[in-house]
Amino acid sequence: MLHTQTYIVNGSFDYAISPLDRGFAYGDGVFRTMIIRNGLPECWPQHYQKLVADCAAIKIVCPSAELLISDLQQLFTQQEITENAVAVVKIIITRGEGERGYAAPAITNPLRVLIKTDMPTYPNSYFSDGVDLHICKTPIAAQPLLAGVKHLNRLENVLARMEWADPNTLDGIMLDCEQQVIECTSANIFICNGDTLTTPSLNLCGIAGITRQRVIDLAHLIGLTVKIESFKLDQLFAADAVIITNSIYGAFQVKSIQHKRWAMTSLAADLREILKEKFYLKENF
Amino acid sequence: MLHTQTYIVNGSFDYAISPLDRGFAYGDGVFRTMIIRNGLPECWPQHYQKLVADCAAIKIVCPSAELLISDLQQLFTQQEITENAVAVVKIIITRGEGERGYAAPAITNPLRVLIKTDMPTYPNSYFSDGVDLHICKTPIAAQPLLAGVKHLNRLENVLARMEWADPNTLDGIMLDCEQQVIECTSANIFICNGDTLTTPSLNLCGIAGITRQRVIDLAHLIGLTVKIESFKLDQLFAADAVIITNSIYGAFQVKSIQHKRWAMTSLAADLREILKEKFYLKENF
Repeated sequence: MLHTQTYIVNGSFDYAISPLDRGFAYGDGVFRTMIIRNGLPECWPQHYQKLVADCAAIKIVCPSAELLISDLQQLFTQQEITENAVAVVKIIITRGEGERGYAAPAITNPLRVLIKTDMPTYPNSYFSDGVDLHICKTPIAAQPLLAGVKHLNRLENVLARMEWADPNTLDGIMLDCEQQVIECTSANIFICNGDTLTTPSLNLCGIAGITRQRVIDLAHLIGLTVKIESFKLDQLFAADAVIITNSIYGAFQVKSIQHKRWAMTSLAADLREILKEKFYLKENF
Repeated sequence: MLHTQTYIVNGSFDYAISPLDRGFAYGDGVFRTMIIRNGLPECWPQHYQKLVADCAAIKIVCPSAELLISDLQQLFTQQEITENAVAVVKIIITRGEGERGYAAPAITNPLRVLIKTDMPTYPNSYFSDGVDLHICKTPIAAQPLLAGVKHLNRLENVLARMEWADPNTLDGIMLDCEQQVIECTSANIFICNGDTLTTPSLNLCGIAGITRQRVIDLAHLIGLTVKIESFKLDQLFAADAVIITNSIYGAFQVKSIQHKRWAMTSLAADLREILKEKFYLKENF
């Protein structure tokens, strides 16, 4: 019953994580989360390119795309692949095992872990009315060497996510120590004024998601220009609309933050539409 | 042959780490490293107190001391305990397994991992002449919510430690983004001027080690006063002496950094002497 497993470690269903793995010891690794439809990862070229870049940022040699796709295939049955099944897969790459101490081993064997979970279902109201956000008190620290990278040091996101329990609040906005808006705990953020989208610079902190990049690249298709520029909460509250993006839901408009409410527009639906070209892995497997 | 194992997970030699463990996924946990002599952890009260405090900082309920000591016992044979054996044990506590996403599970089962390694041997020259340090370019980010905590988000230390390969360089000094000296990658740091030791404030970043705290508490025994105050590299270079401390070697004087050299004093030896009262776990096991 191989295919009922929900994770695969270095290509095997029998492996677990070594306590000596540096991903476990130090968060010495990176990850990505993506939708798999019919056994095919959505936006695979973008995800793999980002995985390679994030590995390079911390000097890990990323395993080949072929190896990761081969792992991925094993997580799905032929039935799932043919029946239009949708799931979420998280890929984690670490530097692998090491001795005690921070020094990386001379020869590394990066570890790869793929974890399959159900596709989350979102209330219809998220699409029709928008979503509610919390404003997090947990700041994001400025670390230029790791800015933009989706690495495994995510305690800030964990602490920020603990700040609210209301299940109707989808996410929380995180600010840097200068009170500038950076992102949400699990999403990037855009404000819209007229026909201009603005998203924060992530040169000092934050995760540069691939959906953020796709919005930057594709917004012109619906007549919008995109600026990458820092802004604070007062500018966000004054915006015509606020949008959050990630690889799972694409884009949602924000309905309310604290006492502020925004009128619903077609913006998030328009963005989801241009994001629909998902750039599936073209290989036939 | 249970006792040849080098690690124990949740009290068992048969467990490994789940890929769903939040320590692995997010670095959502804390750790400590200590010397074990005759099966007894040195400075156990201080280590356990710090472990509880660090767990509390990220809202993990620390496993009981009894449970951790019971795990520890299993790592050592009766022969090792009676033959004055010395080893290093690292204790890792994580929030345990969780679902996908940053939200912590409603009911958590913290994971405990103890890893036993050989006691490192240091060249005699480290004691007689002092040690050489590198100055790291990797900055430490300011994050007041996690400052002082020995958590598992250690990518900064990993990147900093990659900056030098010379085996004669013991450690590297890390600065914050304001160019203030904070610590070394695996040690705290003190400068000495006259009869005053100064060690950086760790209110914004860095790890507040228990040996640092013991030096702060005990320095009066050798006629020194201790100030906790930020300083920059020029003040460090102008100091009479520089000392680094951790739980494994206690204290070393710094011999050289770049082109600067310091004359050897008895300071590190005096500090190692007052640190000798190791506050062993008193229980008889």
